[in-house]
Amino acid sequence: MADNAATTPAAPAEQQPPAAAAPAAPAAAPASPAAAEGAEGAEGPSKKAQKKAEAKAKKEAEKARRAAEREAAAKAAGKNTGPTEDLAKDNYGVVKERKGQFELSADVEDVNLKNIGEEHVGKAVIVRAWVQNARIQGAKMAFVELREEGAWTIQGVFVANNEGTPVSKPMVKFAAGINPESFVVVEGTVEKPLEPVKSCKMLGMTLAAANRPITNFSDEEPAPEKAAEEAVEKLSITAESSIPAATMLTHLDNIIMHKRAPVQQAIADIRMEVKDLFRSYLKSHGFKEFEPPCLIGAASEGGANVFRMPYFDKEAFLAQSPQFYKQYEIAGGRKRVFSIGPVFRAENSNTPRHMTEFTGLDLEMEIKKDYKEVLLMLEGVLLHIFRGIKERCAAEIDLVRSVYPAEEFLLPEPGKEVRLTFAEGQKLLREEGPEEFRNVSDDEDMSTPQEKALGAIVRKKFHTDFYVLDKFPEGARPFYAKVDDANPKVTNAFDFFLRGQEILSGGQRINDPEELEARIVQKGVDPKSAGIKEYVDVFRQAGVPAHGGGGIGLDRVVAWFLNLPSVHLAAYYPRTPKRLLP
Amino acid sequence: MADNAATTPAAPAEQQPPAAAAPAAPAAAPASPAAAEGAEGAEGPSKKAQKKAEAKAKKEAEKARRAAEREAAAKAAGKNTGPTEDLAKDNYGVVKERKGQFELSADVEDVNLKNIGEEHVGKAVIVRAWVQNARIQGAKMAFVELREEGAWTIQGVFVANNEGTPVSKPMVKFAAGINPESFVVVEGTVEKPLEPVKSCKMLGMTLAAANRPITNFSDEEPAPEKAAEEAVEKLSITAESSIPAATMLTHLDNIIMHKRAPVQQAIADIRMEVKDLFRSYLKSHGFKEFEPPCLIGAASEGGANVFRMPYFDKEAFLAQSPQFYKQYEIAGGRKRVFSIGPVFRAENSNTPRHMTEFTGLDLEMEIKKDYKEVLLMLEGVLLHIFRGIKERCAAEIDLVRSVYPAEEFLLPEPGKEVRLTFAEGQKLLREEGPEEFRNVSDDEDMSTPQEKALGAIVRKKFHTDFYVLDKFPEGARPFYAKVDDANPKVTNAFDFFLRGQEILSGGQRINDPEELEARIVQKGVDPKSAGIKEYVDVFRQAGVPAHGGGGIGLDRVVAWFLNLPSVHLAAYYPRTPKRLLP
Repeated sequence: MADNAATTPAAPAEQQPPAAAAPAAPAAAPASPAAAEGAEGAEGPSKKAQKKAEAKAKKEAEKARRAAEREAAAKAAGKNTGPTEDLAKDNYGVVKERKGQFELSADVEDVNLKNIGEEHVGKAVIVRAWVQNARIQGAKMAFVELREEGAWTIQGVFVANNEGTPVSKPMVKFAAGINPESFVVVEGTVEKPLEPVKSCKMLGMTLAAANRPITNFSDEEPAPEKAAEEAVEKLSITAESSIPAATMLTHLDNIIMHKRAPVQQAIADIRMEVKDLFRSYLKSHGFKEFEPPCLIGAASEGGANVFRMPYFDKEAFLAQSPQFYKQYEIAGGRKRVFSIGPVFRAENSNTPRHMTEFTGLDLEMEIKKDYKEVLLMLEGVLLHIFRGIKERCAAEIDLVRSVYPAEEFLLPEPGKEVRLTFAEGQKLLREEGPEEFRNVSDDEDMSTPQEKALGAIVRKKFHTDFYVLDKFPEGARPFYAKVDDANPKVTNAFDFFLRGQEILSGGQRINDPEELEARIVQKGVDPKSAGIKEYVDVFRQAGVPAHGGGGIGLDRVVAWFLNLPSVHLAAYYPRTPKRLLP
Repeated sequence: MADNAATTPAAPAEQQPPAAAAPAAPAAAPASPAAAEGAEGAEGPSKKAQKKAEAKAKKEAEKARRAAEREAAAKAAGKNTGPTEDLAKDNYGVVKERKGQFELSADVEDVNLKNIGEEHVGKAVIVRAWVQNARIQGAKMAFVELREEGAWTIQGVFVANNEGTPVSKPMVKFAAGINPESFVVVEGTVEKPLEPVKSCKMLGMTLAAANRPITNFSDEEPAPEKAAEEAVEKLSITAESSIPAATMLTHLDNIIMHKRAPVQQAIADIRMEVKDLFRSYLKSHGFKEFEPPCLIGAASEGGANVFRMPYFDKEAFLAQSPQFYKQYEIAGGRKRVFSIGPVFRAENSNTPRHMTEFTGLDLEMEIKKDYKEVLLMLEGVLLHIFRGIKERCAAEIDLVRSVYPAEEFLLPEPGKEVRLTFAEGQKLLREEGPEEFRNVSDDEDMSTPQEKALGAIVRKKFHTDFYVLDKFPEGARPFYAKVDDANPKVTNAFDFFLRGQEILSGGQRINDPEELEARIVQKGVDPKSAGIKEYVDVFRQAGVPAHGGGGIGLDRVVAWFLNLPSVHLAAYYPRTPKRLLP
């Protein structure tokens, strides 16, 4: 195939614009006024118009001559001409063996759809993309919607000129019959349609005709009707508004199709931007990245909900958080550290808020005067993230909203950040919350419904979907949380909320070994147990400055910011008690 | 304490430079010629000299007057004066309870050591750092070497003026007795010593006297002799050149001290730079980051050396590489992806080259024409990394070399990259390698000694420590490796080497489901087994472009580039069959 393709004439300038044969189809219209303007250059418009007219006349004469030849040839060949007469046969096909590909013109630019612009109009390009949709329009024309990297789509138009190359009727039939979600390589000319193509994102451009090979990597020969139906069924899953759980499961079972949906690629792009904003903000504030281990030798944070496994002649556990290791970094001579990595919870919770493996964005820092330094740093990085994605991912957010509708995410104006104490939060719930929360106590942790109710009150009262709840009661915090000197019933620890759902826990840690050991005992943990003893000893070995930090759940930040119905839609390969594949 | 501290006079300009009392000690000398030059400005040098002499005379008179006063006071108080007379007593101490800290002057700048420069000379600053070393020089002077974030150290000089604030004799004694590795907060004045302080990195600066509180976070009251000895023993471990295994183990058992060693912080800084360079290069080449899972439902790559664990009512495994998931991303509509994350090997190998958990830098990309596109991308990113760290981390590399000597890492000149086929490599070994490798075969994988021998030959012959070995024999590669169309005995797969040690494996993957299934069967794996079936099905579901990629071992890149004796020294918390703590 490669040999055949190499002998096919390639210069696109010599070819008749195939779209000219079908002026009725808006998407396949010839060069637009804008494109003609672009070509003016040195010559005056009148001279150019004359040249154009001449060229047109010449072309039409040539066309007539070819048509006559064709007719004569068809008459001579009789009935059996059809398939054998396909002069474009080397320009398309299924690459079944995949040992090589059709060879493409070496001098034609290979472009990403998103980079196609005015400068490409009238030029030949090579596009590598997935078929989103393909349909035939009569015997001579096919529309093939091509998609690349999520939301970028272009309409490819194949018009048979019946003269052999570059496009023949069988080639049009082939193109229209390509299975949706096949991967194709198309060489064509970029054109501006007269009217925008409504189904494509690049409204202003179409890829007119395959000047050169169309290579189809789908495994089967085209079988338009059935395949198209199947694929649409698959693709339409994400487009079905509010997503009942069963539908999402089907979706996740077909992970490849799930990933190809533009909405999922947009979510993935936003997710990566959140990570990048987290990293760059902290680096600019003097933080150093480090890597905590996943495999640990002791179920150090209490032992509940931890995965355990045989490890040679011992037992190993999967880290539930990088908590101890962040603190070891501070003890080990770093002033400010952060980490981005997987953490694990062996919790049999089958809810849209839980996963067994998720990504933690963690930081820990020296406290100079007050733990509020930590609170403000965490608030600062999150506001930077939210403002950053609103700015950098506006298109992706819009796309996600078109599938998962959401109210605009409200951010506090600078200087008007909402920081309530836990007691203030409970008071709001008692006074302005629903009936059932009239008796909530300042000493007990909040339930998820309470958190959501408080989120609604805060939104209404302070016009923000992001706020901080500080000074959590002592009983609601782990042993390493520092108790408030002024009020031993509360801690210097806080949670952050997004649309009424928790996304961050943080606070000051105890850095005095005696104080730490006393708290460990008080929480009913053995201070001499494996993992705990080593932890306390770190503070005994040598001086550790006052410090604090926090951990952010990346999946939750993405999911709740976008108001997705489940955190599983924000993950790449969600892991739940029931899902480990693929 | 806070109240007392707040009433202590703080303006450093009013205080007599304490170093002036000890001209014999070079590190504590008064303002250097350079500093004096800085002050010249409007006045001529002769006038200045005159002024200087006057000032000196005045100072000496004042000194004499004070000494007389002191003598009189001492006589009046008799023997019991010592401790009760300490007028600086509120300026130092151990913060035992750690409920608050000494309060520092609100108007004094808090600086990182690395940021101290000419502009700070003569100014008061607050420094938060670890004590690297403390010693007394007579009864009136103490030198305290302070260290922050690894290699940045400054010499603190405490000189008692015997007039109470800011420094008293008991305070000098206290400072000299601070346990090494304690964390301290010191307020002092930056001075330029006459001669550079040889033991400190910031040769040009000293922190003269504590104008204000020195806060010691070590747990015990100072006990100079013993503590210093202990700490030196701990610290000296990394400074002992070639590191026998036992010493490194002791080191890793004391992870906090290990981390505080400047050489370890330099290695950590270089490691992070490698990650950043990897990420930024790939992003600028159109790659998107993704996150593969650690928990997987099947031991998909053969099942050997995989950690397995109970997972609710099922079994789970820890990912040995993101191989399948990188390919799923390509199948899922991404053109180029990369990931940075932990991978796991349950291999009972106790060598300096192995860990059970390590960080993989992985990429996967569409192949447009030839798998060499992948090879060149990987070569490009690694050369970018090596050149990048040589430039950005020159100081850190020097520091590491001072502990772990290494020959300069040789890089190929642009255009002279060394890419040998596996057969060419074996031929070199046969012809130019040691006696025992005279009969190596082109069909068998290389052993570690063979790789090292080839590395030496390549270095000698081509003057590079970085090279590529391409076209590995079919038998040495996993089932997903694409066999070379032109020669079925070899694959389109390669390894990269650093100082003769493998750091990367990569190549083209099979993207045709039939071809893939045939290879799986040929390799003795059941194509219907869990994990494998789902993998093959991905290529059946819909079109997947030709693609390839590679995986880089971050720990090995760092370790071999720096010529560290063990990969364990390049990791944050190395995990081996014998080590899971801390």
